[in-house]
Amino acid sequence: MRPSDFRVDNPKLSGAICPFCPGNEHLTPPEISAIRNGAAPNKPGWSIRVIPNKFPALRIEGDLGRMGYGMYDKMNGIGAHEVIIETADHKLELPDYSQTTTEQMLRAYRDRIADLKNDSRFKYMLVFKNHGVRAGASLEHSHSQLIAIPVTPKRVAEELYYCRDYFEYKERCLLCDIISQEQLLEERLVMVEENIIAMTPYASRFPFEVHILPRRHAHDFCKINDKEISSLAYVLKNVLKKIRQALGNPAYNYILHTSPVTVPRPGRPEMWGTIELDYHWHIEIIPRLTRIAGFEWGTGFYINPVTPENAAKYLREESVDD
Amino acid sequence: MRPSDFRVDNPKLSGAICPFCPGNEHLTPPEISAIRNGAAPNKPGWSIRVIPNKFPALRIEGDLGRMGYGMYDKMNGIGAHEVIIETADHKLELPDYSQTTTEQMLRAYRDRIADLKNDSRFKYMLVFKNHGVRAGASLEHSHSQLIAIPVTPKRVAEELYYCRDYFEYKERCLLCDIISQEQLLEERLVMVEENIIAMTPYASRFPFEVHILPRRHAHDFCKINDKEISSLAYVLKNVLKKIRQALGNPAYNYILHTSPVTVPRPGRPEMWGTIELDYHWHIEIIPRLTRIAGFEWGTGFYINPVTPENAAKYLREESVDD
Repeated sequence: MRPSDFRVDNPKLSGAICPFCPGNEHLTPPEISAIRNGAAPNKPGWSIRVIPNKFPALRIEGDLGRMGYGMYDKMNGIGAHEVIIETADHKLELPDYSQTTTEQMLRAYRDRIADLKNDSRFKYMLVFKNHGVRAGASLEHSHSQLIAIPVTPKRVAEELYYCRDYFEYKERCLLCDIISQEQLLEERLVMVEENIIAMTPYASRFPFEVHILPRRHAHDFCKINDKEISSLAYVLKNVLKKIRQALGNPAYNYILHTSPVTVPRPGRPEMWGTIELDYHWHIEIIPRLTRIAGFEWGTGFYINPVTPENAAKYLREESVDD
Repeated sequence: MRPSDFRVDNPKLSGAICPFCPGNEHLTPPEISAIRNGAAPNKPGWSIRVIPNKFPALRIEGDLGRMGYGMYDKMNGIGAHEVIIETADHKLELPDYSQTTTEQMLRAYRDRIADLKNDSRFKYMLVFKNHGVRAGASLEHSHSQLIAIPVTPKRVAEELYYCRDYFEYKERCLLCDIISQEQLLEERLVMVEENIIAMTPYASRFPFEVHILPRRHAHDFCKINDKEISSLAYVLKNVLKKIRQALGNPAYNYILHTSPVTVPRPGRPEMWGTIELDYHWHIEIIPRLTRIAGFEWGTGFYINPVTPENAAKYLREESVDD
């Protein structure tokens, strides 16, 4: 982009013709997978649809081309960038979905991650959702994204290292211990189901930040079972409904935190050691209510005007239909 | 704050009565220091004024109160939060300042950091500027902030560790080596003065991100000499002028990256080892042109639509008056 491209701040979502609506399948690249009622691929009649991103952040074809550039490092932007169109109905937001639709979406996450593990170039699959302009969404029609990348991201590695450190000290999973303490104290709990728990994290970075975790230990989202899918769908939908109701439909991001690919890769043997024991997949929801300013950039610390204890109380008390 | 406080997104800067304008000194806490023409403190007649923040992120009084909270850690929010009102003229932005005004601002940064080093509770002094609503500014009158905190921030520690790692391998300062390579390649240079260099960093996170560094190695901003103050004022002002002109006055943050306090603290002996040799103070300017979305939160990687080489070229070619 050139400097002049930044001169117009365009906070509106583009709207004229929605490429994610049924009937406009020709506006997207051919689908990777879909759930549909007998109809042909790339035609209407689907209830969920996974497509390659038309403007991908990374290219799927080619090799990594690792090279030095003086003292710096360089590699090609290789990866997969997919879009999960969660519903055919342009007007629905995630809190409006049926239980079935939400479960379908979660199964699509799981299945796409599992499939991309077969490409030996990829080390990490990141699933996330941007809702609203302030959260970086550029299309209104409800969708999530999956990016598969050939490196383990900086922030993921940081979390993995902390979990491993804790495990080395305690011989227990950090997040299992957090779940246990949170159930004891109750003050940061938002929803507790048989299989899934939702809570505001201690000393949370953002107002109304919510983490959703499986109560059963598992490092890899692909290990999720049917009961957990069902419970996660219920909790995710209702937590987002509570957030929408309490805060007036704020923009938000959610991010699935799951294990990197643990099978050995060419030139790199297994390096994740105790990850099956020390890491615990979960989803982090970040409502975009505050702005990141110099202090946050400079420190990595966040000033949060709402204690997580108050946020949890407000969200617990927000009654939703189901 | 309560949920309802977030329901109105208020992107306007508050404007009715500016507490930073001359004549309104009674609206701010009493000044810490100022440059003024003979007049009494907290009255008009000043050209730069440093005050405690009226709504501080941290409290100046009390002890750290370190304690455990189950498995978590807790401490009081102790620190200093000061505001540097850079000019008496409400209408001026940094690129409009005289050379003298810009130098005064930089001297105020240096002097306030040096003074706060005398408080043995503080380990790090962060100086930053938020310009524009998108960058988190809440008042229009041009100002910077200084936050002194009792811990070394996460992101600062990360940078310190990388610099030390590099030093252990090469026995040279990482940023000295970067300056040397950038002068060789030229493609990312924005301004080169006798004492100060401005460049877009290799593989930069943000479009038009610019780093400004002293060519003479120094770990601590307090070591800056008069020639460097003069050269830094000239470069900072002109780089921001180029950014304003090229991009239509975008919001930006800049952050001074300098050494943490290196004198031993109660209960903690000197821990920074070779920091005088391995760390190199600098200023990072981040124009706020793109949005942080799920991918960035999840990875710590940034998708940048402008190569730093192109950004540097555009900024070099942007001609400014002086």
